[in-house]
Formats: sequence, structure tokens, C-alpha cells
Amino acid sequence: MAHRLVSRAFPVFGFDVNPDAGRRLVAAGGRAAATPAQAVEGAMRLIIVVANSVQAEQVLFGTDGAAEALTNGSAVMLCSTVPPDFVRTLAERLGAKGIALLDAPLSGGTVRAGNGELTVMASGAPETFAIFEDVLGTVAQTVYRLGEQPGQGSTFKMINQLLAGVHIAAASEAMAFAARNGLDTGKVFEVIANSAGASWMFCNRVPHMLAGDYTPHSALEIFVKDLGIVLDEGHRLRFPLPLSAAAHQLFLMGSAAGFGGDDDASVVRVFEQIAGVKVQSDSTSDT
Amino acid sequence: MAHRLVSRAFPVFGFDVNPDAGRRLVAAGGRAAATPAQAVEGAMRLIIVVANSVQAEQVLFGTDGAAEALTNGSAVMLCSTVPPDFVRTLAERLGAKGIALLDAPLSGGTVRAGNGELTVMASGAPETFAIFEDVLGTVAQTVYRLGEQPGQGSTFKMINQLLAGVHIAAASEAMAFAARNGLDTGKVFEVIANSAGASWMFCNRVPHMLAGDYTPHSALEIFVKDLGIVLDEGHRLRFPLPLSAAAHQLFLMGSAAGFGGDDDASVVRVFEQIAGVKVQSDSTSDT
Repeated sequence: MAHRLVSRAFPVFGFDVNPDAGRRLVAAGGRAAATPAQAVEGAMRLIIVVANSVQAEQVLFGTDGAAEALTNGSAVMLCSTVPPDFVRTLAERLGAKGIALLDAPLSGGTVRAGNGELTVMASGAPETFAIFEDVLGTVAQTVYRLGEQPGQGSTFKMINQLLAGVHIAAASEAMAFAARNGLDTGKVFEVIANSAGASWMFCNRVPHMLAGDYTPHSALEIFVKDLGIVLDEGHRLRFPLPLSAAAHQLFLMGSAAGFGGDDDASVVRVFEQIAGVKVQSDSTSDT
Repeated sequence: MAHRLVSRAFPVFGFDVNPDAGRRLVAAGGRAAATPAQAVEGAMRLIIVVANSVQAEQVLFGTDGAAEALTNGSAVMLCSTVPPDFVRTLAERLGAKGIALLDAPLSGGTVRAGNGELTVMASGAPETFAIFEDVLGTVAQTVYRLGEQPGQGSTFKMINQLLAGVHIAAASEAMAFAARNGLDTGKVFEVIANSAGASWMFCNRVPHMLAGDYTPHSALEIFVKDLGIVLDEGHRLRFPLPLSAAAHQLFLMGSAAGFGGDDDASVVRVFEQIAGVKVQSDSTSDT
């Protein structure tokens, strides 16, 4: 996202715990800061794209955090998938300092980010949307405006992740069971992708399984986290979520088996290891 | 299917345990038989469209069953979703009498059947496909030829039903949880249907939930049966299926709550009753 903004002439001061990211940003024409606080010196807008709520907390309120350096009237756009309740509390804490919050979880991954083709499920006050309008128009293809309260965007994202996670786990279970039944898994993909059993995730992730390619387009640990958020919120609200719970256990099995940093389609490898089957298809392994 | 075939000038002798079905077929130009055996007298082809393997067994081998009346060289097309292992055994039993079997489970429901727009996931010997070629061309829009062994078509259908059933249950869990979180459920449908959380079943069944319309386009009991087949086969093959098992329990809850004859989207009513939430959307209740 930073590179996309730099390429469209936005002045970008970046901070990342990985110094390589800072060097790449400088090479692309941005500037690298040594701390979150330094990155926002004199800025009225901060965009946070981190892995989870602990990191978001640290960026804002940790040592040399950004919140101290941000001034009254500035605004923060939080793009991470975090618990909706964290976002609501964060909006209050920032609001007490006169800092507005746009709740703006993303969908799309690094390639689409670089092309300005992200989807954003956002909520916040109309004036906060206005502050980030040019940024959103540059990084996103689709911006859903889902309410005026921070937390609503994250709740929509949570529901999306519930379904996405269950569908990846279901695709894994189904493809491994198809292999156990001796079916041609490439043919199974072709038939199901055009039938009532299809899902967006089935069509997107099963090709990774057929190719046996677990390069992390989206790492398995992300769903360990995101279904964890779903289940924590369900617990908090006393709402039963049996499918989410079963899917979360499958992602935890994948993480336990050492696939946490690999593509989330690796859930199928849990079934492959347990049952001694092979989903990879020779006829499609070169795609 | 019988009406579709009659409308295309096929001579159809029908048998149904419901005499009304026979009368409607006669009114449409077909003929009604008093028993399965009578229906196949002098016929070389039998098409069976029943709810489960018990009924298929009865049609063929029960009192006045069709198998006794069928002659050497005839062929049976079995369109029901039944256990693949039942189909393999059936092929042997019929084969011993010189009767060929086309394993041809359907997808699509009564409206698409009437329009000749079904999808068929079929397997069988090429010569058996040839025997039913004109029939398949009349009732189906898409015919997948999935192998030469009866049982292979049913195995593909089983994998499809695993995914379809899990996706309906997941859509129910997600929509009810969205309602519990106070989201506008109509908006949730609109956003998710265009996001990575989408599935064919989500897009097809959630509108029934939003409208609160549980007219059975496909009855909930069908998935009690079909996920039951999935789990029985998993048990037989010693293959763990945690998501299918969780989804099956949700369909059983729906059946226990009295929704077995209603649309399968009724799984959402289990969550609505348990948690006291409402997924039906006023803004879309008139669609």
C-alpha cells in the first residue's frame, strides 16, 4: 500500500519493524522513519497495516508510539483484521485525544495492494471517510461504507472471515476425501467449481492443493488468528459457532504440523498426512 | 423429468407411490402403471428418481419390483443420491441378470427438471451412456461423464453434497452471528456475496433467510440424508470429516426442531431460536 501511494505521488513516511521494508520504501521514493512516533511527526493522517491487535496497540501506544505524536484533528485508518470490540475501545481512546478513527479492514493481499485493487470494509464518521477519500481511491477498487461507528467494518470483515475460513477447511476436507475415494482430483475441481458445491475459496485455493504449491499467498496463521477472533467474539456474546470451531481446530492442526507460515490451503496437508492420501494432481501440477 | 420426456414425445410409463403423480402424468400424455414391474413391461429402459437407497431397493427388488420384469439387455438409470457403495453392489446384482446400470445422480430440483436443465454426474459403461443418450440430452443441460464404473458418479455427487451441506450450515451460522452482532443482514448478504466469503449456496439460500420464506425448494431432510451418506462413507473408509459431522448435527437440530420438510435454509432458524436473533430483513422481505 505504501508503494502504491508513493507511486501516485503521496508523500509517505513509513515505519516497519523490518528495516528491509524501510529501505525498499526509500528506494521507491518514500521516506523511512525510525519509530512510529517519528513517522507521524507533522502528519495529519496515519495508516496502520499490521498483523493483529497487539501490533496495532504497540504502534499507537507502545514505546515511541504514534498516538503521543499525533495532534488534535488528525485521523488514523486501521486496516488490520482485529476484534470489533478492540476497534470500538480504540475509537474511544483516540477520540479522547481528538483523533478520529476509520475502521478499514482490507481484503486482497499484496499483489492487489500494489495494483490499487483492494477491497475495504470500512466504517466511521462521514468526515473521517472524507479525510481518507483520496487514499481509499488510490489503494482500493471497492470501498464498502458500512456505518458511522468504528467496529462495524471489522464486524463485517469478521463475518467474511468466518465463511472464508470454514470454506477453506471444507475444501480441504472434501478434496482429501475425494482422493481417499480414488477420484481424479483435477476432475473433481473442474466439476465442483461449476456446481452447487462451489465457493470463492474452493475455486481460489484448490488449485494450490492440486499443484502442491504452498507458497504463502495468505499464510495459514492468519486464519488461526481470524477464526480465533470469531470464536472469542462468539464466546463474549454467548453465541454458539460449531462450524467455525471445527474449522479453527483444523487450522490449529495445520499450525501444529508446521504449516503456519505456508499458504492456508495447507489445511489439506493435515488430511493428507493423517490419512495417507495425495490431493496433488499430476495433470495440473504444472499450472 | 417424466413430464419433460412426455413433452418431447418419449413414451413414458410412470409409477409413483403417490397416485396423484400418476394422474398428473396421464393428464400430460403419459401412462401410469400400478406397480414398478408393470411400468417396465416390454421396456428396455428404466429411470429411477426416488429419495434414497431404501426406495431404490424397493422399486427394483421389492414386491412387484422392476428387476424381475426387466429382460436381459435392458438398462437402468439411477438418478438418486445414494451411497456409492450401494451403487457398486447394485451394478453387480443387476449385471448378474444382464441389466446394465448408469449411475446418474442429479442436481437441480423440480423447476430445472421441467425445463430440461438438470446437471447429471454420471458414470457407467460407454454402451450404457449410449442407451440413455437421448434421455440425458432431453432432461439435462450438463452431463458430466465421470468414469466407466457405476459408483464414480455417486462419489462425485457425494463430494459435492459434502461441500453444499457445509456451506448451507456455514451460511446459517454466519448470518445468525451477523444478526447477533447487530448488522443489517441485507447489507451483509450484499457485501459477502461479492467477497471471498461467498459460496454458491450462500448466494442461493441466504435470500430465503432474508425473506423468511422456507417453502421447500430443497427440503432440509435431504441434507440429513446426504451428509449422513458422507459420514457413513467416511466411517467405512476410516476417514475423519469434522466439518461434515458438525454440519450434519446442525441439520439434525433443524429436523428435531420440526423443519425437516421445510427448505434447507431453515438451519438458520435453529440459530435464531437458540439465540433469539432475527436474520429476516425487512428491506428484502418482499423479494
